[in-house]
Amino acid sequence: MKVAALAGGVGGAKLADGLYRVSLLDDEYKVSIIGNTADDFTLWGLRISPDMDTVLYTLGGIANPATGWGIAGDTWTTLDALTRLGVDTWFRVGDQDFATHIRRTQLLAEGHTHTAIAAQFTEALGIRARLLPMCDEPVETVVDTPAGRLPFQEYFVRRRHADTVLGVEFSGIATARMTDAVQTALHEADVVVFCPSNPIVSLGPILAVPGLRATVAALSVPRIGISPIIGGAALKGPAAHMLRDLGQEASALGVARLYHDLLTHLVIDHADAVLAPEIERLGLHVHITDTVMHTDADRQRLAHEVLNFVA
Amino acid sequence: MKVAALAGGVGGAKLADGLYRVSLLDDEYKVSIIGNTADDFTLWGLRISPDMDTVLYTLGGIANPATGWGIAGDTWTTLDALTRLGVDTWFRVGDQDFATHIRRTQLLAEGHTHTAIAAQFTEALGIRARLLPMCDEPVETVVDTPAGRLPFQEYFVRRRHADTVLGVEFSGIATARMTDAVQTALHEADVVVFCPSNPIVSLGPILAVPGLRATVAALSVPRIGISPIIGGAALKGPAAHMLRDLGQEASALGVARLYHDLLTHLVIDHADAVLAPEIERLGLHVHITDTVMHTDADRQRLAHEVLNFVA
Repeated sequence: MKVAALAGGVGGAKLADGLYRVSLLDDEYKVSIIGNTADDFTLWGLRISPDMDTVLYTLGGIANPATGWGIAGDTWTTLDALTRLGVDTWFRVGDQDFATHIRRTQLLAEGHTHTAIAAQFTEALGIRARLLPMCDEPVETVVDTPAGRLPFQEYFVRRRHADTVLGVEFSGIATARMTDAVQTALHEADVVVFCPSNPIVSLGPILAVPGLRATVAALSVPRIGISPIIGGAALKGPAAHMLRDLGQEASALGVARLYHDLLTHLVIDHADAVLAPEIERLGLHVHITDTVMHTDADRQRLAHEVLNFVA
Repeated sequence: MKVAALAGGVGGAKLADGLYRVSLLDDEYKVSIIGNTADDFTLWGLRISPDMDTVLYTLGGIANPATGWGIAGDTWTTLDALTRLGVDTWFRVGDQDFATHIRRTQLLAEGHTHTAIAAQFTEALGIRARLLPMCDEPVETVVDTPAGRLPFQEYFVRRRHADTVLGVEFSGIATARMTDAVQTALHEADVVVFCPSNPIVSLGPILAVPGLRATVAALSVPRIGISPIIGGAALKGPAAHMLRDLGQEASALGVARLYHDLLTHLVIDHADAVLAPEIERLGLHVHITDTVMHTDADRQRLAHEVLNFVA
């Protein structure tokens, strides 16, 4: 049973981790996670890959449970020393986290691909799942706002995603290509999972890699999504207001509409049970459950439900 | 009273600091320190400048007094995280120290010169002396040993300077040029000080910058050295065995011979008092004192003696 999961951000990483934990308990399952690299950016000369690292740290069991990003128990010595040197340290990078960025930057400069680097990092952290960047070319999410066009982290972190979103663009996406590893993972998958990630800026770039959306749409295996919108809101981050700003409905139904040509199944929260009939009219099988993952057990339970629902 | 001091390594940094402390107490003195950049190297994609940073941290009051290199109280979180990622962390870089290398690497990549970066770092650390890299071009010390030609840090740190030294080369030195700032510092100096640094690999590269040695030799102001060799040994590092390996005498007299055309005065330790007559026969004025700097007070006392001796 091969599972290909598309994931980005904190919620997505949690379900990816649940799927991974299931695969550790049950040899039948093999998990490949396709991650978003469009929020990658260069800071202080270092190449940072926030969505990929959130998945990496979460599966590696070292993620900071309080923030969802960064490493548990990380310290701020290097960042404070940069501040002392006069650097504007608006983006928080912990001491352990710096090691990841230093190493990634070095390996990229030496000509390694993102795919090879992710393989090296997952192996180093003892992760027995594949973590696959959506592509090896640089792609950059740019957010169009009344304050101008903003690089994603500028919008997301520095300005705390407070700007109205007029549009989102994935600069460089036209020349990106699906990696061989991603193509293989999708074609060999017995089930494809859309983790509960921001549909615009986490799964959006992955699906925008030329050919990827069409590949997923053409698969004959079950494809199941988990709505990241619960009761009209995102648990974390700007997904709901982004959807609204872009004229979409910020609800599980809105999510279903975005994905209805790609998915066969959708998991929604009890809070959204009332939307089930309308989602089913879009041709999707609906499963209603608790989709909020507070604990490690929640991740695993939801992953089990997802896999059982399509089985 | 303008003082230009050539310094590299731990002992050199201590006297440079003494001279700087004197200048803080007495407005009459202005100190420029010309530093060695030939032990710079690239590690994990970061540009590291050990001799320059030893002076920077020492003058900034943040040097680790136990090691002489690195920052007091620094921690190893980033290094340990690099180890976890499978990196061979043979060179010890602390978390605060990483900030310096990250920032330097970024600024160099953006086209800033070493001279501009040193000015930025000294200002950030509140240092009211000029710290001048010997040149802005990359120069690399290479040590010829029975085990082959070794990059300096490979010889010095990884192999703990245990190899016999067959020769030392400063790769790139032919196309290096004295910076305007170094030329000005030397020409305006009322006294030039050769700090007690390794004559081969710390002061050696500085003096090998085309034109620099001739410039110093042609000055008419007092030029005073402090022997880094005491009783036939170096307090720290491989200076003595390097001198011997290269057929020089590992003594204050050997040091005098290396510098006799450049210096007018030499300070030697009580332990070497017996060598004074022979050093004087080389045409140098000799001052005998305690040259070992255990405490901050020692640094300042020795700096005072040096400046008074030539006054």
